[in-house]
Amino acid sequence: MVVNKDQYIIIVGCGRLGGYLANELSESSSNSVVVIDKNADAFERLNVSFSGFTIEADALETDVLINAKINKADVVVTTTNHDNVNIMVAQIAKSIFGVGHVIARLTDPSKEKVYEELNIETISPTALSAIEFKRIIMEGR
Amino acid sequence: MVVNKDQYIIIVGCGRLGGYLANELSESSSNSVVVIDKNADAFERLNVSFSGFTIEADALETDVLINAKINKADVVVTTTNHDNVNIMVAQIAKSIFGVGHVIARLTDPSKEKVYEELNIETISPTALSAIEFKRIIMEGR
Repeated sequence: MVVNKDQYIIIVGCGRLGGYLANELSESSSNSVVVIDKNADAFERLNVSFSGFTIEADALETDVLINAKINKADVVVTTTNHDNVNIMVAQIAKSIFGVGHVIARLTDPSKEKVYEELNIETISPTALSAIEFKRIIMEGR
Repeated sequence: MVVNKDQYIIIVGCGRLGGYLANELSESSSNSVVVIDKNADAFERLNVSFSGFTIEADALETDVLINAKINKADVVVTTTNHDNVNIMVAQIAKSIFGVGHVIARLTDPSKEKVYEELNIETISPTALSAIEFKRIIMEGR
């Protein structure tokens, strides 16, 4: 496994998933993490030891992404509850700013094809969890 | 891996996760699946090929669980958005009806200790997804 170090990572959305991920990634000192959320309260999910930056703003506004130095980002991750927001930000990151690695949270499995057509990598918490539940049930642990 | 066949599985909650899981489990003809949800519209998430039963009722009411033949259940899975509901139903299934295998969805990671104290197995979609995001980011795929 090749592990990339010193990555500059922008996380859009600081809900449960975005916050958890930001904490996990900033624990590794080699990463620089920026989290964007419209709601300042969301940043309360970040640990006191969180070493990254927070931006209280709407990531759908291009200026916000420019201020977040998206042109230098190695990775952009979109984790909001809204698939349409995740799709749009992911597409802007990829098409306008040429970010090399863009990953989006997929909330509604029926929208998977939209992402596929846009060639955006996705993670579906619902599908991941269902597979894990099924594995445990079938193994009869 | 030992695979248990012919399991009788009760799924509480037919939201995105419960519905997805019900469809997955009923595809395997060896399983009997019953899904309980307070809201009949939720059952629209089930495929037309879904081979199990649906019960429109509140799983917190013991009579509902008895009607679902919980005394014969091999597995009870609680998948609602509400940790408190998931905890209560899981505890009832385990302590009152002696169901051998009880698994609960954990929505708020801060409640993990409550489940641990009750000795109830959990799956956290948030944690699972964050780990998967992190793996992909660190591998730099």
